[in-house]
Amino acid sequence: MAVRDWVDKQEITAGLLTLFCRHTSASLVIQENADPDVRADLETFFETIAPEEPKRYRHDTEGADDMPAHLRTALTGVQLSIPVVEGELALGTWQAIYLFEHRARPHDRQIVLHLWGD
Amino acid sequence: MAVRDWVDKQEITAGLLTLFCRHTSASLVIQENADPDVRADLETFFETIAPEEPKRYRHDTEGADDMPAHLRTALTGVQLSIPVVEGELALGTWQAIYLFEHRARPHDRQIVLHLWGD
Amino acid sequence: MAVRDWVDKQEITAGLLTLFCRHTSASLVIQENADPDVRADLETFFETIAPEEPKRYRHDTEGADDMPAHLRTALTGVQLSIPVVEGELALGTWQAIYLFEHRARPHDRQIVLHLWGD
Repeated sequence: MAVRDWVDKQEITAGLLTLFCRHTSASLVIQENADPDVRADLETFFETIAPEEPKRYRHDTEGADDMPAHLRTALTGVQLSIPVVEGELALGTWQAIYLFEHRARPHDRQIVLHLWGD
Repeated sequence: MAVRDWVDKQEITAGLLTLFCRHTSASLVIQENADPDVRADLETFFETIAPEEPKRYRHDTEGADDMPAHLRTALTGVQLSIPVVEGELALGTWQAIYLFEHRARPHDRQIVLHLWGD
Repeated sequence: MAVRDWVDKQEITAGLLTLFCRHTSASLVIQENADPDVRADLETFFETIAPEEPKRYRHDTEGADDMPAHLRTALTGVQLSIPVVEGELALGTWQAIYLFEHRARPHDRQIVLHLWGD
């Protein structure tokens, strides 16, 4: 994973990594890394809870998937901070970091990484 | 924006700003800064997902908007950390920080700002 | 509270405490510390919004409460950062930190604490 490789290169033993997604229609989540069904169920859930139903929303500047993408981003968040312990991200065994794209078509996304430590 | 002005005054080149909302019925979200319809749709969405329906909730100490405010706060969160890069918050072009008031009547709200860096 | 006691022992005057939950079926929330009804309503709400309905989900490796636990974790988050001011967590009067267990049976959970400051 790119984030893990980047942290390795910084040669920090103990610290805090912050990931920040610079968008309002994509978010960052930590979820199970084993069964791909989890990601499929997660997508279905957010499609159900914040559906593409144009008549529900006033904002539709970029199409029917525009406002649902904002809502799903608000529910999941754009920032994560993860402690670094003994040079490694302190993620649990089953945890992985995902960029959660909420627009129908893929977009280029920028994530700022901030690492503080010794 | 008050947060941006405060960061400017600290004269930090690279670091991490943390905003912390000291309440359980107001939250912090990053959302689109351009079209006010986004904020209106966001409010409608949270009113729908966690509605003011007194019979749904046991807790109503401060009125019908009390428990829905707690739920909306739990869904959106009270803390944000944003990297500072070259002296500026690394927000995306379309991102702005909002204090999301979930009570029916406006309340005085305290946000603690913590800035770490060089 | 264990977290507060741990912070006291570190003898940091000003800094930032980060809590990180190393799981995908338990989360961290800040909520009202006074009325236990708030916690009960919170649990009911998340049981309603992400229900245990096996036919809804593909992922059920660990049982009917498996995928709902992932969804409730994605909605509430596994990380919190709280400023430390004058040696104390800057929590509001009504705020307390909760580990939100989303599995039906209790599990052992690991929370990593990271404190940075002077």
